Amino acid sequence: MQEEASEKKKTVTFGEVLMRLSPSDNRKLLQATQMDFFFGGTEMNVAASLAHMGIEVQHVTNVSNDIVGEAAISTLRKYGIGISAVKKVNYSLGLYFLEVGSAMRSSQIAYNRLNSSFANITPDQVDWEKILSDAAFFHWSGISPGVSEGAYQTLKAGLEIAREKGVIVTADPAYRSNLWKYGRSSHDVLKEFISLSTIFVGGVNEINEILETEFSADEEGFIEASRALIAEFPSVKKVFDKVRTSVNASWQKIYGRAWNGGKYLETSELEITSVVDRIGTGDAFAAGLLYGLQHFDDQEALNFANAACALKHTHVGDVNLVSVEEVLEVAKGKTDGRIKR
Amino acid sequence: MQEEASEKKKTVTFGEVLMRLSPSDNRKLLQATQMDFFFGGTEMNVAASLAHMGIEVQHVTNVSNDIVGEAAISTLRKYGIGISAVKKVNYSLGLYFLEVGSAMRSSQIAYNRLNSSFANITPDQVDWEKILSDAAFFHWSGISPGVSEGAYQTLKAGLEIAREKGVIVTADPAYRSNLWKYGRSSHDVLKEFISLSTIFVGGVNEINEILETEFSADEEGFIEASRALIAEFPSVKKVFDKVRTSVNASWQKIYGRAWNGGKYLETSELEITSVVDRIGTGDAFAAGLLYGLQHFDDQEALNFANAACALKHTHVGDVNLVSVEEVLEVAKGKTDGRIKR
Amino acid sequence: MQEEASEKKKTVTFGEVLMRLSPSDNRKLLQATQMDFFFGGTEMNVAASLAHMGIEVQHVTNVSNDIVGEAAISTLRKYGIGISAVKKVNYSLGLYFLEVGSAMRSSQIAYNRLNSSFANITPDQVDWEKILSDAAFFHWSGISPGVSEGAYQTLKAGLEIAREKGVIVTADPAYRSNLWKYGRSSHDVLKEFISLSTIFVGGVNEINEILETEFSADEEGFIEASRALIAEFPSVKKVFDKVRTSVNASWQKIYGRAWNGGKYLETSELEITSVVDRIGTGDAFAAGLLYGLQHFDDQEALNFANAACALKHTHVGDVNLVSVEEVLEVAKGKTDGRIKR
Amino acid sequence: MQEEASEKKKTVTFGEVLMRLSPSDNRKLLQATQMDFFFGGTEMNVAASLAHMGIEVQHVTNVSNDIVGEAAISTLRKYGIGISAVKKVNYSLGLYFLEVGSAMRSSQIAYNRLNSSFANITPDQVDWEKILSDAAFFHWSGISPGVSEGAYQTLKAGLEIAREKGVIVTADPAYRSNLWKYGRSSHDVLKEFISLSTIFVGGVNEINEILETEFSADEEGFIEASRALIAEFPSVKKVFDKVRTSVNASWQKIYGRAWNGGKYLETSELEITSVVDRIGTGDAFAAGLLYGLQHFDDQEALNFANAACALKHTHVGDVNLVSVEEVLEVAKGKTDGRIKR
Amino acid sequence: MQEEASEKKKTVTFGEVLMRLSPSDNRKLLQATQMDFFFGGTEMNVAASLAHMGIEVQHVTNVSNDIVGEAAISTLRKYGIGISAVKKVNYSLGLYFLEVGSAMRSSQIAYNRLNSSFANITPDQVDWEKILSDAAFFHWSGISPGVSEGAYQTLKAGLEIAREKGVIVTADPAYRSNLWKYGRSSHDVLKEFISLSTIFVGGVNEINEILETEFSADEEGFIEASRALIAEFPSVKKVFDKVRTSVNASWQKIYGRAWNGGKYLETSELEITSVVDRIGTGDAFAAGLLYGLQHFDDQEALNFANAACALKHTHVGDVNLVSVEEVLEVAKGKTDGRIKR
Amino acid sequence: MQEEASEKKKTVTFGEVLMRLSPSDNRKLLQATQMDFFFGGTEMNVAASLAHMGIEVQHVTNVSNDIVGEAAISTLRKYGIGISAVKKVNYSLGLYFLEVGSAMRSSQIAYNRLNSSFANITPDQVDWEKILSDAAFFHWSGISPGVSEGAYQTLKAGLEIAREKGVIVTADPAYRSNLWKYGRSSHDVLKEFISLSTIFVGGVNEINEILETEFSADEEGFIEASRALIAEFPSVKKVFDKVRTSVNASWQKIYGRAWNGGKYLETSELEITSVVDRIGTGDAFAAGLLYGLQHFDDQEALNFANAACALKHTHVGDVNLVSVEEVLEVAKGKTDGRIKR
Repeated sequence: MQEEASEKKKTVTFGEVLMRLSPSDNRKLLQATQMDFFFGGTEMNVAASLAHMGIEVQHVTNVSNDIVGEAAISTLRKYGIGISAVKKVNYSLGLYFLEVGSAMRSSQIAYNRLNSSFANITPDQVDWEKILSDAAFFHWSGISPGVSEGAYQTLKAGLEIAREKGVIVTADPAYRSNLWKYGRSSHDVLKEFISLSTIFVGGVNEINEILETEFSADEEGFIEASRALIAEFPSVKKVFDKVRTSVNASWQKIYGRAWNGGKYLETSELEITSVVDRIGTGDAFAAGLLYGLQHFDDQEALNFANAACALKHTHVGDVNLVSVEEVLEVAKGKTDGRIKR
Repeated sequence: MQEEASEKKKTVTFGEVLMRLSPSDNRKLLQATQMDFFFGGTEMNVAASLAHMGIEVQHVTNVSNDIVGEAAISTLRKYGIGISAVKKVNYSLGLYFLEVGSAMRSSQIAYNRLNSSFANITPDQVDWEKILSDAAFFHWSGISPGVSEGAYQTLKAGLEIAREKGVIVTADPAYRSNLWKYGRSSHDVLKEFISLSTIFVGGVNEINEILETEFSADEEGFIEASRALIAEFPSVKKVFDKVRTSVNASWQKIYGRAWNGGKYLETSELEITSVVDRIGTGDAFAAGLLYGLQHFDDQEALNFANAACALKHTHVGDVNLVSVEEVLEVAKGKTDGRIKR
Repeated sequence: MQEEASEKKKTVTFGEVLMRLSPSDNRKLLQATQMDFFFGGTEMNVAASLAHMGIEVQHVTNVSNDIVGEAAISTLRKYGIGISAVKKVNYSLGLYFLEVGSAMRSSQIAYNRLNSSFANITPDQVDWEKILSDAAFFHWSGISPGVSEGAYQTLKAGLEIAREKGVIVTADPAYRSNLWKYGRSSHDVLKEFISLSTIFVGGVNEINEILETEFSADEEGFIEASRALIAEFPSVKKVFDKVRTSVNASWQKIYGRAWNGGKYLETSELEITSVVDRIGTGDAFAAGLLYGLQHFDDQEALNFANAACALKHTHVGDVNLVSVEEVLEVAKGKTDGRIKR
Repeated sequence: MQEEASEKKKTVTFGEVLMRLSPSDNRKLLQATQMDFFFGGTEMNVAASLAHMGIEVQHVTNVSNDIVGEAAISTLRKYGIGISAVKKVNYSLGLYFLEVGSAMRSSQIAYNRLNSSFANITPDQVDWEKILSDAAFFHWSGISPGVSEGAYQTLKAGLEIAREKGVIVTADPAYRSNLWKYGRSSHDVLKEFISLSTIFVGGVNEINEILETEFSADEEGFIEASRALIAEFPSVKKVFDKVRTSVNASWQKIYGRAWNGGKYLETSELEITSVVDRIGTGDAFAAGLLYGLQHFDDQEALNFANAACALKHTHVGDVNLVSVEEVLEVAKGKTDGRIKR
Repeated sequence: MQEEASEKKKTVTFGEVLMRLSPSDNRKLLQATQMDFFFGGTEMNVAASLAHMGIEVQHVTNVSNDIVGEAAISTLRKYGIGISAVKKVNYSLGLYFLEVGSAMRSSQIAYNRLNSSFANITPDQVDWEKILSDAAFFHWSGISPGVSEGAYQTLKAGLEIAREKGVIVTADPAYRSNLWKYGRSSHDVLKEFISLSTIFVGGVNEINEILETEFSADEEGFIEASRALIAEFPSVKKVFDKVRTSVNASWQKIYGRAWNGGKYLETSELEITSVVDRIGTGDAFAAGLLYGLQHFDDQEALNFANAACALKHTHVGDVNLVSVEEVLEVAKGKTDGRIKR
Repeated sequence: MQEEASEKKKTVTFGEVLMRLSPSDNRKLLQATQMDFFFGGTEMNVAASLAHMGIEVQHVTNVSNDIVGEAAISTLRKYGIGISAVKKVNYSLGLYFLEVGSAMRSSQIAYNRLNSSFANITPDQVDWEKILSDAAFFHWSGISPGVSEGAYQTLKAGLEIAREKGVIVTADPAYRSNLWKYGRSSHDVLKEFISLSTIFVGGVNEINEILETEFSADEEGFIEASRALIAEFPSVKKVFDKVRTSVNASWQKIYGRAWNGGKYLETSELEITSVVDRIGTGDAFAAGLLYGLQHFDDQEALNFANAACALKHTHVGDVNLVSVEEVLEVAKGKTDGRIKR
């Protein structure tokens, strides 16, 4: 894949930008008087992470036509994301409240995104032809079509044009049970959209849901599930997955595995003994993968993705802001965290 | 009025509880990484202010069934407001973003309250018979019926039962142009609801809007307007108003005036040369008035309301948290702000 | 016990409310310019935790008649604790300074509670007859009678009336060497008060101190010690204890064990690998137990208490603010801390 | 006076060091979760201000033998105050809570200093002979003898030895109604101690209280009062006073006036239109005066004291931390506040 | 001028980006443990302000090749400034410490910019031909050539090419006495560079310095001085100036005046009674002027510049972040600061 | 050694004081708007740690002649360090930016110390004769002579005089690759200066560098290396080293070992499972050693140094601020971190 995609060519992402509001210092919301805020959202996180690593990215979304939307756009710009396809509309920006967990206490999220600026997006607001004309990659997640019929239709239009243009489509089939309230079923939509995708960023659980199969979670099960997925959706060429062991909210282990069509690949496991921020770690994996696929072979790309995912756990915010050099070091096994002067 | 209402008897308020999010230190939202938050809302502010002064108050509203709603309820409890008529529903709590102005720069507000937990209130969710059974006062504002048909219907039901039970109804005909999107006109609804009210907390502008008249803003105009209002709505007995001069966002002057059916009353002007927080100052006036009407004669009540309004400008938050003693001192003319040890 | 006590019936607690002042971010006091503050105190922590879980609670105490006492009362109200037996007196509220430890560095506490508002409490200030008239549970700790003769006398009066009324009395024989300066000995008072109690929340160390025995700390020793205690104090029916292994200040392990008169019970061990706040974890155990005894059988109650104790380590403040659902999940073994959306 | 005292010689101060705890951003205590803290106290403020201006100072006091006392000592050292006469004792450091006022809202203070480490000071703890052996100035205020009999006796011992040694004694007869609970009357003690003093830093009100006279507050009254004071207490040579007009808590005007035994002196009025922190402004005047008397003639010293007082209003904390150069500029009339690069 | 420059065409700015470090809440540096930081610098402030108003801008500078330089670039991007001519070099980013003054206390600045990344800029690092190829405006200030010989040479090269290409050059002859250490004299360099400029943004003082004249500061003096400047430097067509009255550090008044070659223009005076941040107000004037000259006639442009300057005083940071709409309102006389909902 | 050095005698340190600027809460610099700041520097850290433990210390350095230098001096005074040999010069104080790492993410440092006030130090600015006249110990590190020729010359002068006067010289041969830009080689200078030193605080790596040997890192290698060092530099009597295992940035293990001329000594390993701040831990070891050598035998001194090092990891800042008692407890094996009341 390395040879097909050049760093020059653009990655396009599509999805909701949310404001995240979170009391600091492990306070519960009812103990706090202040909240930190960040802008994030699964696909924007991928975009920001890529832009931070020097890849040209354009994000497609709607934001609110007020001081919140203005701050969201400022943040996209700050990360170096192209904003020419970001529209301001007269609906509030979606947001969520996060109480950060610790040890056996789970983080808790309360969403306020119903009828948000993104939920009101419609296909006519996005000029996919133009946006995708110079794109090498298009990244989507299963969250966006769960938001509203408009988001579904808009993404569908984008995927079809991407397919036409031979853009490499990466799919993160993230399922959120608190979405999908507008009528369509997650199952149907994922099948439809994965049939338009090239790279599947997910694992056995996701494949079992899509194919209604019962593959096991071990290496063999993963290989079989990947093969079955590719058999069902011939556009899909490769499956990349991260496997997470959650010791507790503050202690996580992850490793990556992949079926690249012909071969099973696996990384060593990375251990984060003092998680700072768990949000966006999956997106850091996807972004690491997208970067890796444009620079390295599949094994190295998987290593890079896994290291990026691990490193995202170590600083705050939804977006992975470590450098390519930092990711590479960890990907190559340097995990002792000694000070850099 | 002093003799009719006793401190023992309850005041009931109805309206939306909003979370207010605001960057501190005169930052613009796009410069900030943190926001202070408070819970407020015009009628809740009145409730909290009264409870803080020792009056029994019950607030009727819906909040979200999540960590935000839990924090909102905690806050109501903290102020000492009765919460037995607060329901948790599966819609997000309304909120607003505030950039605090300074000098000639206006404060700017962006609302996110469409389809909020309060907007989804319906008359069947509120047992007005029970709630109003031991009430002496019922306070409403023109904001609530502007939110949704459900809020309109619920308030209407409450006002009718209040009327039946002889509860004194205080009306703050606050108009917000960014509401009233669901179909009814502010003009019609205000006329309907003021015909069910006892005390009108507003001035010439509001009366002109309601009666479609053109009274002038001076003393004479105020008296004539008040008389016309009372003539049109015989349930209304008195009109209380505060007159604000906005030197700039950080420097305000206010005085109160009233037509109590037979007499024109006026306070001296109070000057706030260093405004800390402008939000909720009108509600502090209303609450001061409600407290005053239960403890003093009309002139003293007006002085008390005006002092309460002035003092709300001097600390943060939507709710007036100064003590009765502090208000009384200012009402009696002590405005030198010397340290109390 | 489940059938005897209903959730409707009230729990009464008695004890000092302290303001806790603590520099954030692992600063030493001499490095700081700000401190976070919380209101707590062992019995109030139990009260708040119970109220937060939906139990009706009333706390009996004195606070200062100033802005600090006002804030303390606001906090009790915020948690939903009944405050009708809280008196304001002309002595300062007790307080303590906390430097939060980490790894092998211990947290350090400096108290300022001598002659506090609570230390000046006297039996005539508390109408125990009325307060206990509708109580199902009364909770006390060994800290209160160590504060002053007045606190001793007041608690004694309460315990005697509780005993008369058949209220279930839970005893936490916490010993603080920095108290007991006013003349009485901890040993004598504990013996006197445990003879008026029903449930003993303590372990082998505490029993050895009270009985002047030397039981060992293992399971057998615990059972024998519990039997000896019950033999000595026939009012005591059950003994509940938590066993803590302090790997270091940031890493703790706990499990619960009990002798319920006929049977030895034990929970599995919970491990907190990243302690956020160690203060109040014993009180969270006691509150969990009181909740559990009103809803579950003894084994489940012990599991619940242990889980509540573990969860208190994961957020800041003296009071356990996790939900019943969160406690139940951990009590049932779900400790992976995965995000809840 | 300039020639008598040289900058080389030491100033000695005696008094309580208090921790001040204050919510920031004009929050009421019940709205806050954090407080800023500072160490201050009227005589320590004078000491710190002098040390900051390069004068050798030694402060005599007791602090607590805990992390709070350690932080207090660190702060004294930080300002450059000599600490060899600061003892650690087993009583808590006194403290106070401050809600900062604004406009017509007064700042409010709640003290917690009863039985503090300073209140427990006794004459045998202080080696006045040694401490005063190389002192040029000794400064005391009327607050210290109001704290406890021990503080009274200790100060008395110091004043007598100062008198013997010919040390110049400056007296600030500050009266606090919330002190003087231990038996002695402020009136008697002030008379006793002023008879041992050289410079009186106070005005007509204070003189009227001490002499039980009724001089008027105007220039003539001030001169007559000063003459009467000097007539009564021949040790007193000069009277320095600042006259404050409190427009409101955020807007103050001050000027200085003096009777230097032969001549009436007066400064121009300085206007602080945006008060940052009102605490310690009187102490800044006293320190400015002490500095001025060691460097300038009486008129210049008065100008310097008045400018120092004005400047203390413009930054936070109890202690004046502007430089001699900044004070001199304002003393000479430069009050436009232009940026210094 | 309106017709010559279109909004489409780019503005180019050149100058140092500094990190500003400032304790918050009117603390002195020695009282603080935290500092707020911002990125600014006179010409970058102009660039950011213009970009925020929708003008295409490119800034030319060097930043450090470390995490500080990365943050500086992120900030430029955030404001929407083109960064393709920003180079990373192996020298630290310049910075300054600011203690914010209040009332008669001046703000104090300490610079750390000697040998900074910008001071090490050289003409060969900047491709002026390319950068200026599509520029309509080029803005420079007298600060840049005072930094180093390299900065002087680089700006000189830029100005000469701008002149060739007919770019409109705006000159802010800001003089800083703490610069100009490398050998050249401010006087000589300003003369050289103003002879290459089109618009002079300065007043009588600056002109007197440049021409070694003694024009008076009144209207007449301003007109004569402007005429003399234009006579001396025929490339200069117009002179725009703001006149500031510094009541004190927290209270400022400003108005604008201009000589546009044929006519004297003047704005009304705007009063900022509660200054939030004084830094960058001159740059806000320059940016307002550059925006105004591209959209309005000279009088309106001057009004706009003056309003922008006034509004910059009302929020924190070096950069003016109010909207065009807000500036226009104030320019048209609405200064009452009423809340915008 | 215990008998040679008495606590009365002074320790002298020489080196740069740097301001450290660091975003809190694991933010990357580009995510932050605030930074915490501390003053530190390897030799000053040793000085502060010793002063905090009651040892008389004097630090020799230059700071900037501005508000930053003033704050640096205040901080030295606060810790109790003698400042009579600290000069203010017209160069900026050196500083560094720190992004605190976590888990496998390394902390990252960016320095801004080129041409700092310390770099401009010259031998004639320091009166070593006087400073060292009553010194028992002189501590230096390999960082100082790497800063500039002036720093090299100044330290050289100090070491020679120390040698003459029989002062015990402790050497920390810290090597920083980002220094040593001015011409001299680290290798040559270390050899020169170690030949003037008594105690070597370093390990096998450092010895291998100095002697150009290849000793192994195990116990045997350490002993042989130490012997070789002492053979080469007869002034050196003892070698003390700490051995660090970096599990990751948040999890460290350390133990101490020593060759005291005749015997190999070793401590048990201490584990810091939740590192708060890694900076200054080596300096805490050195200071612990200096304290230990003045109070205990070599084994106890090594235990003390190792415990001090471990404890520095547990609070923020460059300086070790735990008490002698806390260090002793850990040195004796109490590492469970239980609360101290």
